[in-house]
Amino acid sequence: MQPIKVYADRRSQPSRAVIIFCRVNQIDFEEITVDLFKSQHLTAEFRKINPTGQVPAIVDGRFKLYESHAILRYLASVFPGVADHWYPADLFTRAKIESILDWHHSNLRRGAATLVMHTALAPFLGLATSPDAVKQAEKLLMQSLGRIESVWLKDDAKFLLGSPQPSIADLSLVCEIMQLEILGNYVRDRFLGAHEKILIWMDNVKKATSPHFEEAHELLFQVKASRLNNAAAANQTSEPSTKLKIVSKL
Amino acid sequence: MQPIKVYADRRSQPSRAVIIFCRVNQIDFEEITVDLFKSQHLTAEFRKINPTGQVPAIVDGRFKLYESHAILRYLASVFPGVADHWYPADLFTRAKIESILDWHHSNLRRGAATLVMHTALAPFLGLATSPDAVKQAEKLLMQSLGRIESVWLKDDAKFLLGSPQPSIADLSLVCEIMQLEILGNYVRDRFLGAHEKILIWMDNVKKATSPHFEEAHELLFQVKASRLNNAAAANQTSEPSTKLKIVSKL
Ligand SMILES: N[C@@H](CCC(=O)N[C@@H](CS)C(=O)NCC(=O)O)C(=O)O
Ligand SMILES: N[C@@H](CCC(=O)N[C@@H](CS)C(=O)NCC(=O)O)C(=O)O
Repeated sequence: MQPIKVYADRRSQPSRAVIIFCRVNQIDFEEITVDLFKSQHLTAEFRKINPTGQVPAIVDGRFKLYESHAILRYLASVFPGVADHWYPADLFTRAKIESILDWHHSNLRRGAATLVMHTALAPFLGLATSPDAVKQAEKLLMQSLGRIESVWLKDDAKFLLGSPQPSIADLSLVCEIMQLEILGNYVRDRFLGAHEKILIWMDNVKKATSPHFEEAHELLFQVKASRLNNAAAANQTSEPSTKLKIVSKL
Repeated sequence: MQPIKVYADRRSQPSRAVIIFCRVNQIDFEEITVDLFKSQHLTAEFRKINPTGQVPAIVDGRFKLYESHAILRYLASVFPGVADHWYPADLFTRAKIESILDWHHSNLRRGAATLVMHTALAPFLGLATSPDAVKQAEKLLMQSLGRIESVWLKDDAKFLLGSPQPSIADLSLVCEIMQLEILGNYVRDRFLGAHEKILIWMDNVKKATSPHFEEAHELLFQVKASRLNNAAAANQTSEPSTKLKIVSKL
C-alpha cells in the first residue's frame, strides 16, 4: 500500500498531533513540510490539497482531508491496527470524546493559539497585536485549563474521562498546551504551575506516546531556544543587568 | 422508551440545530428551556447537566452530553430511524463532513457569533464591545461565507459536498447563518446579498426540514421584531426623520 502523505509544519500543534498519531500507530506516511514562515501554505499547489490554506492536511490515494480532528478520526477508523482506545467504537464513550474535541476549538485552542499568536508570533510576523486580545486569550486559556482538570481529569484520572489509555482528544489537547513552551518557562509556568493534574496528565500522554512525542516536539524546543537567545542578545545590548538575569532564568 | 431531554434556548443557534434534528427525525424529546437572558445556564442545577454552562445539552437516561456537534453525531448514531445522509456510515463521506464540522468552530461560528455578540447582544447585556473585534469578526464571517460557496457548494450543489440530501453539517452551519437575522435585514443582506449560492442552499435546508425549521426559528424572528421596534422607538424620540426611515426599511 502507498504511504499516506501528511502535510505539516512541526511548529503547528495540530500537525504534531497527526504525526505522533501516525508514528505511535505505525501508519506508514510521507511527511511533507509546509513551512508556514515561508508562506508555503499559501501556494496554489498547497491550496489544491487544502483550499483553506492550513496545516495539517493528508492525502490518502485520491482522498484529501484537512482539519486535524477529522484526520485523526479518519485514520483511527480506516487503519485496522489502531487500538480502540484512541477512538472507541462504543457510542457513549465516543460521544464524550467528541464533546471534548468540539469544546477544544472555541476554548483551549482559541485561548492558547490566540495568546501565542499575539505575543510570540505577531511581533515576528509583523502583525498588529492588541492588549485586549491578549488579556481575553489569557483568561480563556486559564479557564480552559481549570475546566479540563475539574471536568475531565477528576479524581486520579490518568487520561481524559478517567480512561486508562489515551484517546485522540488527549493527544490533540496536550499538543496544544505544549505550544506554551515557546513563550518561555516563566509564562508557561504562570499557566501550568497551578495545574498539577494537567502536568501529570501531560506526562502520561508523553510516556504513552514516547519516543514519538519527544521527537515530534524537537523543533518546538529549537524555536524556544532561539527565541530565548534572541531575547538575551536584545537585552544584552539595551539593558544589560536585571532583565538579562530574568531572561537567563527562562 | 423515555424521551430524551433537550436543554435549549431557541435564541441559540446550536440549540435550534438539535431541536430541528430531533423533530425531523421523529426523535421523542422533552424540551427544557434554559433562558440565557435570565442566566439559567449559570445555575448549580444546570451545571450538573453541563459543567461548562452552555446550551444545548441533552440527557438520555443516565447519559449526559453537550456540544451540539457531538449531540448530533450521537443522536444520528443511536437512533436507528435516522437516515444515513445525516451522518453517513461511509468513512470517506463522513470524514469530509467531520472536516466541515471542525472548520465551523473557528471560522463561520467564530465570525458570526462574535459579530452578533459585539453588536446586538453586548449593549443589551452591558458587555464591553470593541470595534476591533467587530471588524475582525466581519472579515472572518465574510471569508467563511466565501469558503463555503467556493469549496463545499461548488457547481450546482444542493447541499454541502454536492450531496443530494442534507447532513448534520448543513443543519449546523445554516442555523448559524440564520442568527444574522437579528442584526436586521440591512446587515444580513450586507453579508448574504453577494452570496447567492448560500441563499439557495439555506433555502434547500429549510425546505428539507420544513415545517420544523420555521417553527424552531419563530422565537428568533420575534427577537428580531422587538429589536426593530425598540430601535424605531429610540429613533423616534431622538432623531425623528432620516434615521427612522432607514430603520423602518430593515
Ligand atoms: N482547526 C484546525 C486548525 C489548523 C490551523 O490553525 N493551522 C495553523 C497552524 S497551527 C495554520 O495552518 N495557520 C496558517 C494560516 O491560518 O494561514 C486543525 O485542527 O487542523
Ligand atoms: N460549541 C458549542 C457552543 C455552545 C454555545 O456557545 N452556546 C451559547 C449559546 S449559542 C451559550 O450557552 N452561551 C452562554 C455562555 O457561554 O455563557 C455548541 O456547538 O454547542
